[in-house]
Amino acid sequence: MRLVLVNINTNETLTQRLLLHARQVCSSDTQIIALTPRFGPESVESRYEGLLAAAGVIDALLSFTEPYDGVVFAGFGEAGREPLQELLDVPVVDITDAAAYLACLVSPNFSIVTTLPRAASQILERLHLVGLAGRCQSIRPTGLGVLEVLDNPAIVDSIVHQAREALAHDDAEAICLGCAAMAGLAPQIADRIQVPVIDGLTAAVTLLESLCRLGLSTSKRMTYSPPKDFMNIIGWPMEPTQ
Amino acid sequence: MRLVLVNINTNETLTQRLLLHARQVCSSDTQIIALTPRFGPESVESRYEGLLAAAGVIDALLSFTEPYDGVVFAGFGEAGREPLQELLDVPVVDITDAAAYLACLVSPNFSIVTTLPRAASQILERLHLVGLAGRCQSIRPTGLGVLEVLDNPAIVDSIVHQAREALAHDDAEAICLGCAAMAGLAPQIADRIQVPVIDGLTAAVTLLESLCRLGLSTSKRMTYSPPKDFMNIIGWPMEPTQ
Amino acid sequence: MRLVLVNINTNETLTQRLLLHARQVCSSDTQIIALTPRFGPESVESRYEGLLAAAGVIDALLSFTEPYDGVVFAGFGEAGREPLQELLDVPVVDITDAAAYLACLVSPNFSIVTTLPRAASQILERLHLVGLAGRCQSIRPTGLGVLEVLDNPAIVDSIVHQAREALAHDDAEAICLGCAAMAGLAPQIADRIQVPVIDGLTAAVTLLESLCRLGLSTSKRMTYSPPKDFMNIIGWPMEPTQ
Amino acid sequence: MRLVLVNINTNETLTQRLLLHARQVCSSDTQIIALTPRFGPESVESRYEGLLAAAGVIDALLSFTEPYDGVVFAGFGEAGREPLQELLDVPVVDITDAAAYLACLVSPNFSIVTTLPRAASQILERLHLVGLAGRCQSIRPTGLGVLEVLDNPAIVDSIVHQAREALAHDDAEAICLGCAAMAGLAPQIADRIQVPVIDGLTAAVTLLESLCRLGLSTSKRMTYSPPKDFMNIIGWPMEPTQ
Amino acid sequence: MRLVLVNINTNETLTQRLLLHARQVCSSDTQIIALTPRFGPESVESRYEGLLAAAGVIDALLSFTEPYDGVVFAGFGEAGREPLQELLDVPVVDITDAAAYLACLVSPNFSIVTTLPRAASQILERLHLVGLAGRCQSIRPTGLGVLEVLDNPAIVDSIVHQAREALAHDDAEAICLGCAAMAGLAPQIADRIQVPVIDGLTAAVTLLESLCRLGLSTSKRMTYSPPKDFMNIIGWPMEPTQ
Amino acid sequence: MRLVLVNINTNETLTQRLLLHARQVCSSDTQIIALTPRFGPESVESRYEGLLAAAGVIDALLSFTEPYDGVVFAGFGEAGREPLQELLDVPVVDITDAAAYLACLVSPNFSIVTTLPRAASQILERLHLVGLAGRCQSIRPTGLGVLEVLDNPAIVDSIVHQAREALAHDDAEAICLGCAAMAGLAPQIADRIQVPVIDGLTAAVTLLESLCRLGLSTSKRMTYSPPKDFMNIIGWPMEPTQ
Repeated sequence: MRLVLVNINTNETLTQRLLLHARQVCSSDTQIIALTPRFGPESVESRYEGLLAAAGVIDALLSFTEPYDGVVFAGFGEAGREPLQELLDVPVVDITDAAAYLACLVSPNFSIVTTLPRAASQILERLHLVGLAGRCQSIRPTGLGVLEVLDNPAIVDSIVHQAREALAHDDAEAICLGCAAMAGLAPQIADRIQVPVIDGLTAAVTLLESLCRLGLSTSKRMTYSPPKDFMNIIGWPMEPTQ
Repeated sequence: MRLVLVNINTNETLTQRLLLHARQVCSSDTQIIALTPRFGPESVESRYEGLLAAAGVIDALLSFTEPYDGVVFAGFGEAGREPLQELLDVPVVDITDAAAYLACLVSPNFSIVTTLPRAASQILERLHLVGLAGRCQSIRPTGLGVLEVLDNPAIVDSIVHQAREALAHDDAEAICLGCAAMAGLAPQIADRIQVPVIDGLTAAVTLLESLCRLGLSTSKRMTYSPPKDFMNIIGWPMEPTQ
Repeated sequence: MRLVLVNINTNETLTQRLLLHARQVCSSDTQIIALTPRFGPESVESRYEGLLAAAGVIDALLSFTEPYDGVVFAGFGEAGREPLQELLDVPVVDITDAAAYLACLVSPNFSIVTTLPRAASQILERLHLVGLAGRCQSIRPTGLGVLEVLDNPAIVDSIVHQAREALAHDDAEAICLGCAAMAGLAPQIADRIQVPVIDGLTAAVTLLESLCRLGLSTSKRMTYSPPKDFMNIIGWPMEPTQ
Repeated sequence: MRLVLVNINTNETLTQRLLLHARQVCSSDTQIIALTPRFGPESVESRYEGLLAAAGVIDALLSFTEPYDGVVFAGFGEAGREPLQELLDVPVVDITDAAAYLACLVSPNFSIVTTLPRAASQILERLHLVGLAGRCQSIRPTGLGVLEVLDNPAIVDSIVHQAREALAHDDAEAICLGCAAMAGLAPQIADRIQVPVIDGLTAAVTLLESLCRLGLSTSKRMTYSPPKDFMNIIGWPMEPTQ
Repeated sequence: MRLVLVNINTNETLTQRLLLHARQVCSSDTQIIALTPRFGPESVESRYEGLLAAAGVIDALLSFTEPYDGVVFAGFGEAGREPLQELLDVPVVDITDAAAYLACLVSPNFSIVTTLPRAASQILERLHLVGLAGRCQSIRPTGLGVLEVLDNPAIVDSIVHQAREALAHDDAEAICLGCAAMAGLAPQIADRIQVPVIDGLTAAVTLLESLCRLGLSTSKRMTYSPPKDFMNIIGWPMEPTQ
Repeated sequence: MRLVLVNINTNETLTQRLLLHARQVCSSDTQIIALTPRFGPESVESRYEGLLAAAGVIDALLSFTEPYDGVVFAGFGEAGREPLQELLDVPVVDITDAAAYLACLVSPNFSIVTTLPRAASQILERLHLVGLAGRCQSIRPTGLGVLEVLDNPAIVDSIVHQAREALAHDDAEAICLGCAAMAGLAPQIADRIQVPVIDGLTAAVTLLESLCRLGLSTSKRMTYSPPKDFMNIIGWPMEPTQ
């Protein structure tokens, strides 16, 4: 099985980090390829950045001509899964959805610890569309942006602090890590707070493997049917400026 | 008051049509300028096209250097309002929201007559996020794409037919026209079906005037606070290919 | 365009205040007439008072024989719009709805600062029926009744205090003024709290102008179809006692 | 125990009919007194009529000076319970709520058979406020107004027909009779359709007896606390015209 | 009328206590018989215990061969009403539902004071299924288990403390006692907190009398139709060990 | 990895069928053990049967003394997962939840094709508790009971017929097979209807593998904390008669 993991941020260090953690959880016969868009924000923290990043992700996937069996869309709380579901025949799993689904399998509810306060409303919208907003007790920011999460020795303490707030004050019984850059931190945080901690990236990898093994891919009946004549668009594929 | 009307489709004929109808309803002291993005799909009917179109809309607005007091975002059911709300200091009104709000002022509920069947799920998502999905009785497609709506002598009959179905079978008491290209058709349809018919474009123009007159613009407190360093993005502004 | 502004309170000072603020925001070619019911409570703060007040409002409008193009129903959180929508051919805009709709155009959510604690449940019911309760973060009372709001030099400080609580503790990003008597205070409060502040009265005036300009009025198809033989009611029109 | 049954319609024949059926189900030691308002519509079918009727009901109760232990508010789908809950110290049970609660005790869901199509939206609003709209499968009108229900030999057939439609097409498993004038018809309809049939009037009488026996009455803590100085209202009590 | 009251706990002292309080509120011509299951947990506090207890309740009712007119299912927040509704022809009232319905008749909302923190999620699930979760402001545990509630002189103080917290911080306007063992405590608690206090057991008794008097029983149309060949189950009736 | 698959029906043929299909989708290094309860109904179709069956499942798992890493609870729409989550340290995946989660990953919505009409309300309740009821377009019965599904050559045609109805009339874009006995039929049905078809059993196996691989198990913080002294229950473990 060959899976493509696409980072919505153009930060290559993060892409490699995601790849490392994805490989740690996938089956031995699963091959994972990681893509970084050739244009878009280095780190996505607003809806504006998210929109440009999603265009970069589409560009990266349309430019990638090797065969593959599924896609992990690595942007927590970002819009962008749906256009890919229209364009591709293989299944696409968003790390936000993946974290929420697995959290619901092991807990009656969950809270999310994320980056900046502004991320909360985007994440909540995604959960509303999925149907699981009612099981999310709270979304608590650490106050650290995506790039500050990466290689920050204090990040675990910071997440643990917010997670404990969620357990104590919001009746949360599980924690989702609400940023792609938090991939790989779940085990050490779980050790400290003693509830399930779900990392969307690894959740998405294993869910995508499930879909592939069961031969399931996106329904093309209506909502995600292929766009008409999809390369015949003025100015597309885009040519990024220097 | 100077308002910018931005078409999400790159079809200039449609842009001129929208401008014509917008001018018919605005106050005598309101000036309206219409923009067509320099890249993006000629007509938007999928989420993929919608995403690229939204990037084109942002590009068009960031490139437009004259002063203005507000923006009408003319894409029915399309995502794209939120990034503009982050980027701009002036209010931004989406024609989907505008149609729904005005319909709710004159009726307990409404149905939407739109273009292709695939549009329904996008529109419904937007209404869910706004909070008014519960007042939408149905979304009925005519089966005609955006460009087929334009200059199609049969379009009014087609909309009237679907509207009557909604009145008869879905308990609808008002009708929203679910496509920017249907702008200007509301009066003749209302004459035939005898319930309020709301056209999102003209609704948006008058709502935007309301906001401007009251000195109201997007809250910058959190969700729509300005993106960090928003021009420092790899490959942006994009350079459309030929 | 001739609009009627009807106060649900029988306090004439308040009626004149509302008229003053309505005139400040309407178009230059809009004429506004203000009505005070000849019976009913001087200030409405309970559902019982609201019910009698709504009867007084109906009486005032049925007794008003000049032509007009629309009605602003000025009672925040009060029931009473629907009977008017049945009786009248022109559109009717309730200041509660108006505030909520405009708040949603400029913010992902809002809180309401109102008069007495008991008002909260009525307001929330109205928002539930409109569909926007999910976007209301909180309803915070100042503790001051309708007549105490009028000509109280401390009212702005009191509203600002509650608004700041809503911003700090309820994640609100905009504020609605939840009492007709607060009309006109929005600009000075907005200056102090730096988020959009929406006054239902002026919101309703501009929304009503929008509807009139677009030729939209209440759907008469079903819910708001005219009552049967509506003047043939025992004891109606009522004759107020001294 | 002394209960007051107040008809919202000013039709005395209906009042006597309601009294008859109420007495058939109450406990042997319960005394029931029936009141007809001295003003208001003979039959209530619109929100306008409902509002005037509710004022008539309040007038009737404030004028009734004998002691009593509780009130049945007999208007299906009409607003008006809440003002009484503010004014009175004894419990007030609305026949709409009563029917819905008992239906939910014996069935996973219910449909309502009512009078005119326009009644549906009012009834649904009341159910939304109560919280039980989700258990209502449909509201089906017979097309007969309140006074046509009274003494109409065809009314049972008409209700049975609509009830069967609800069972067959709406997955209903119980039926509520959605008009006060249908009181007393439940047993014969139940015999024919073989599912529970709930008549709001008799349901309300027995629920009110429950409350009285348990010593429960309206919470006066906040929402239904007494109106301030409630007789000091201009023109109230009203003096009905001839 | 002969009613069966079945305790889900196998504690006979509690059964007798429930019987005592049920008899205090029933009509003079109602006879109440109390059953204790012959197997199952002495006190139910988890879902596991609740499931075994529900099997014990079914066993107790299937073994009880005398005629009766209805059943009170005495387990607050426990699953188990639905199987009885399938098996029996007489109505079955669950004390959780009963408390919630009566609370809603006398208050816009309620909070529940219960035993252990873990009970909250079960109770909330039951309220969601009934449709009244939206009217429940909070569920506050005393921290005392079922058997600690029984004959604990401090229990009233403990409930009053949590009830006051709910009134002060959760905007509750009425209180439900969320444990069968709290039966009989409502009057003294109501005296101290001055809002309606509803005890599910006595509520259920009077609601069951209502249903019986009106000749209403469980709809057998679909959801609660009788199980096929219901005694032909391997190992059933069970033979408790010992 | 060693997983236990527990059938809620006591039909051993079905257990072996489930085991066969589970083994076809699990990883090569996963071992699956199938358990049949020693008491309980041969096939579960009512809530009464479901409750006894769940007791049988608990008995089977508490009696199974070998080590294992997770449990698949194979009863579509049946209650019973929660007690296991309390009792066991390993994750427990219900086939209803599993089907719904995977369907949501590949489609905006789904319909369920199940056995008897009475199953629909139970399944819907489970989806409500999970949060995904809003994404379920319809639940359509084939009219065939659990044992009629097994080894019935017409079952595929019957499911395909109902699935096509759901696609045509309910706007469904994917189909879940709503009965454990339908395991293994997904590929041939998908071939005929050309939308994703999800079988809860195989979905649950792969989801459970995901959880195990990620080291995730049920949160023990509150809702699913271990029952107190859980073997000290009168008459438990039960001794099935015969």
